Amino acid sequence: MNAASLASTEYALNTLYILLSGALVMWMAAGFAMLEAGLVRSKNTTEILTKNIVLFALACIAYLIIGYTLMYGAGGTDNFADNADFFFQSVFVATAMSIVSGAVAERMKLLAFFIFAVVLSAFIYPFQGSWSWGGGFLAEAGFVDFAGSGIVHMAGASAALAGVLLLGARRGKYKDGKPTAIPGANMPLAALGTLILWFGWFGFNGGSQLAIHDIENANAVAKVFVNTNTAAAAGAIGALLITVFIWRKADLTMIVNGVLAGLVAITAQPLTPEPYTAAIIGASAGVLVVISIISLDRLRIDDPVGALSVHGVVGFYGLMLVPLTDASATWSVQLLGAAAIFGWTFVASLVIWYLLKVTVGIRVSEEQEYLGGDISECGVEAYPEFTGSTKR
Amino acid sequence: MNAASLASTEYALNTLYILLSGALVMWMAAGFAMLEAGLVRSKNTTEILTKNIVLFALACIAYLIIGYTLMYGAGGTDNFADNADFFFQSVFVATAMSIVSGAVAERMKLLAFFIFAVVLSAFIYPFQGSWSWGGGFLAEAGFVDFAGSGIVHMAGASAALAGVLLLGARRGKYKDGKPTAIPGANMPLAALGTLILWFGWFGFNGGSQLAIHDIENANAVAKVFVNTNTAAAAGAIGALLITVFIWRKADLTMIVNGVLAGLVAITAQPLTPEPYTAAIIGASAGVLVVISIISLDRLRIDDPVGALSVHGVVGFYGLMLVPLTDASATWSVQLLGAAAIFGWTFVASLVIWYLLKVTVGIRVSEEQEYLGGDISECGVEAYPEFTGSTKR
Amino acid sequence: MNAASLASTEYALNTLYILLSGALVMWMAAGFAMLEAGLVRSKNTTEILTKNIVLFALACIAYLIIGYTLMYGAGGTDNFADNADFFFQSVFVATAMSIVSGAVAERMKLLAFFIFAVVLSAFIYPFQGSWSWGGGFLAEAGFVDFAGSGIVHMAGASAALAGVLLLGARRGKYKDGKPTAIPGANMPLAALGTLILWFGWFGFNGGSQLAIHDIENANAVAKVFVNTNTAAAAGAIGALLITVFIWRKADLTMIVNGVLAGLVAITAQPLTPEPYTAAIIGASAGVLVVISIISLDRLRIDDPVGALSVHGVVGFYGLMLVPLTDASATWSVQLLGAAAIFGWTFVASLVIWYLLKVTVGIRVSEEQEYLGGDISECGVEAYPEFTGSTKR
Repeated sequence: MNAASLASTEYALNTLYILLSGALVMWMAAGFAMLEAGLVRSKNTTEILTKNIVLFALACIAYLIIGYTLMYGAGGTDNFADNADFFFQSVFVATAMSIVSGAVAERMKLLAFFIFAVVLSAFIYPFQGSWSWGGGFLAEAGFVDFAGSGIVHMAGASAALAGVLLLGARRGKYKDGKPTAIPGANMPLAALGTLILWFGWFGFNGGSQLAIHDIENANAVAKVFVNTNTAAAAGAIGALLITVFIWRKADLTMIVNGVLAGLVAITAQPLTPEPYTAAIIGASAGVLVVISIISLDRLRIDDPVGALSVHGVVGFYGLMLVPLTDASATWSVQLLGAAAIFGWTFVASLVIWYLLKVTVGIRVSEEQEYLGGDISECGVEAYPEFTGSTKR
Repeated sequence: MNAASLASTEYALNTLYILLSGALVMWMAAGFAMLEAGLVRSKNTTEILTKNIVLFALACIAYLIIGYTLMYGAGGTDNFADNADFFFQSVFVATAMSIVSGAVAERMKLLAFFIFAVVLSAFIYPFQGSWSWGGGFLAEAGFVDFAGSGIVHMAGASAALAGVLLLGARRGKYKDGKPTAIPGANMPLAALGTLILWFGWFGFNGGSQLAIHDIENANAVAKVFVNTNTAAAAGAIGALLITVFIWRKADLTMIVNGVLAGLVAITAQPLTPEPYTAAIIGASAGVLVVISIISLDRLRIDDPVGALSVHGVVGFYGLMLVPLTDASATWSVQLLGAAAIFGWTFVASLVIWYLLKVTVGIRVSEEQEYLGGDISECGVEAYPEFTGSTKR
Repeated sequence: MNAASLASTEYALNTLYILLSGALVMWMAAGFAMLEAGLVRSKNTTEILTKNIVLFALACIAYLIIGYTLMYGAGGTDNFADNADFFFQSVFVATAMSIVSGAVAERMKLLAFFIFAVVLSAFIYPFQGSWSWGGGFLAEAGFVDFAGSGIVHMAGASAALAGVLLLGARRGKYKDGKPTAIPGANMPLAALGTLILWFGWFGFNGGSQLAIHDIENANAVAKVFVNTNTAAAAGAIGALLITVFIWRKADLTMIVNGVLAGLVAITAQPLTPEPYTAAIIGASAGVLVVISIISLDRLRIDDPVGALSVHGVVGFYGLMLVPLTDASATWSVQLLGAAAIFGWTFVASLVIWYLLKVTVGIRVSEEQEYLGGDISECGVEAYPEFTGSTKR
């Protein structure tokens, strides 16, 4: 035995850790799929499932062919020398795109969505990702975004916002200028999706330490696990409290968004806060997300699952909290990073959505929207035996 | 390289193992949520999902602030030096509380349930946990409960029993003194929940070896995996056989409880039995749980999901089986431990439930029970498009 | 410290890796259960869930008592010295049997199915498995099947085909000789099952390297992860493209089978292809599976979930692709292996299914089929509140 063989074992341990973390992030695709399938109406359920599975597939392939090289260097396929790192990075881009599918649900054409998924995964996301994780100007400026509150979540929400603005609200969402509740068809799926995301987030944040082979790194990963779990738990409680305060009901759709808000908020820096601080971060994010959802609804920005609030507003909030616990971060640089990510992703996405709008079209026809995406786009009803005469 | 760096790698390997085990136990929260959501009626589905997510959140925060220190020592936040251990322990307390939610389903007020979740997680569970895992008098007496057949499962069931006795049966459960079947609304969710729990139990039992860094510990963990899987499998078969014997039908609700019974029974000592013995333990637990469910039903103890039988009766059974394969255990000490856990948890819970009953109330009104918790407590229907006119 | 203690740590790392991989393969049982529950009608949903849970249980116990020794040597229980290996191998046999349940869905008797599950797991599967993984004549001939495109998937499909041929099509499937679509009851479950399988496949393929303790093995496992993920993603896209080409609709049931086809095809050799090649393998498998499903439907071979195409046709395809990237494999030996696996498994299964047919019977009565397996075999409706008057 010699030092080389211990180094080899350490390398192996890190590889196992990154691969399992990546698998957990891949599993988050099921979380987004179930969450969104639970929060849309039954007539658009097969369609949102189709979008979620296909976007994940397109994101992986587009990132394989173009995105990874764009984000991490010009070495092309040489980059694949480190397959574990490639795998871990590629499932992150799919997460960003999953955020889009929820916000544009129930009215966007499949074709436009799929084309956008390719462009986001191949170009828009990796380009801004290269600024920070790829060692670009944000990294040099000292921008801190541990696992991607901004780079992944706010970026996904920025792309979604551009789409939502060009797309408009679902028919029937606003009556006489007032928002109408359009209940989701399947609450167990929404709860399941949330718990899948909670579970998968241990890979998302926990894996972003990128090494676990010695005491220092192992303790760092453990702290990230504790803070991630604590923020999620506190997010649920924050959302529950404000929900009960406003409506006197424990609205599950708000509580699940509170969990996700806690997770998104801690993602920018899950290592430096103490657990109690993580609880405060999560709880405040849980309150913020409810206020944001209500506010966007009043602004007539129709987001069927609350994705813009959870990933956009709270993603920004998470970035801004970093300097409170991490002395290496400053508000000015965090704000610069947020502005750069939002500015690029929003504008680039707006251009792409606009080009799609004037070519293939981004919105389904009025009749298709009435029938629902399941029949008009997929030809497969989600629940053919449950919704017979009660179909809306 | 020196011995210190190998020790560092071993520490890292153990940390990864404990963190992943803890993540799997956290994932069991989804198992309980889906199992219970599948076994209640549709009108109480959103409510039980809300209870499951919020109880997990409350348990984590209450254990963070008070419970962990109470269970493992007075060092306060110093304990967080070992974040991995804290994470692993904190998801266990949530498991105990998840057991309660099933037993009191379809009739308990949200507020009372949430307050109880805090008290159980902060005080009742950690206090008895300190007797064994915290190095207290049961540990000194030689009480063996590897991963918590008693400390977690029977404790959860004891707390639930106290609540059920004060709460009474659901309206319509007993007609002319005879139990009526109230079918669960969604069998795929019940099956999914069971399989999630089976999967997560590899973290629950497998992680409870607490170390995997050398051959001896690695082999121990492997044996725990095999025995856990074998007991679950045998539990399904035991329950299937007695179910077919009694009713000539393969009742899935009994089979899933057979799986869980096999898992609970082996949890007290999954290391010392040979796999064939684990099969016998699991199969007998699968038979026992069916008999117990039928018996409790006749005793007019209304437990919508069978949690008292699965976790209470079989948890006790598991504790009593330990001396058969583990020479370090004796029946007298196992009985002492079971009595201490049950006595404390049942009485303390009874006091808390009683205080809740005479203050905020623990049972929803007759009208609320008729409407269901989804509308009356959460304001969100679980399946708004599926149950239109057929709502019960 | 000495070399022995590093070897001990390496052993521990490999054990953790195999155990977690095995747990992920066990989790695939939930994938098959949800996929099949989503693709059958509501009246047969509880029954297919029951079959999936019980077959997993029976497979584990039968493999424990007989199958493992038959497959890997005459050492009997001595084999259990390596519990981690036993655990990993035992969950593979359950996968093979899970394939059968989908193909024979909606018309097979529970009892016949359970007896067959025992015989397959104890004898039919291990006997052919011994030829390759057990070091038998196929291993000596140089047959390559990394994680079981043939040994697990095609074997499962061969056993299923024998059953389907003796069983016949579901009533109403062919009207005037033409196939009729019988829509599945719950698309979210089908999507969830697919994503569970995708996730679990990282254990199935990733674990089949069997070691991860040094740089070489760690890099191999990482490449397997990348190729497995890439093939699945490309499979979805391949199936989407041909589906849209044929029907102008994005048929989710075909897309999920495309994902699974990509996974099955890469399973024979996920280590030697470059990621771009894995994408081509996956995409072509996605196209192939759609053509195969349409073709079998026209041949009046009724396979409610497409299992024969996904696991049989594509399993064979995967075996035949190995020589393209793996110089150690030849087409003649791959063909020999495929013929041996199919020949043995199909004929042995046909004999067993025939014996079952003439004794206990394999098909439910016409009335039972009309009522559905949930009521006739399990006595438990899957969705008692959703399908009231719309029940078919």
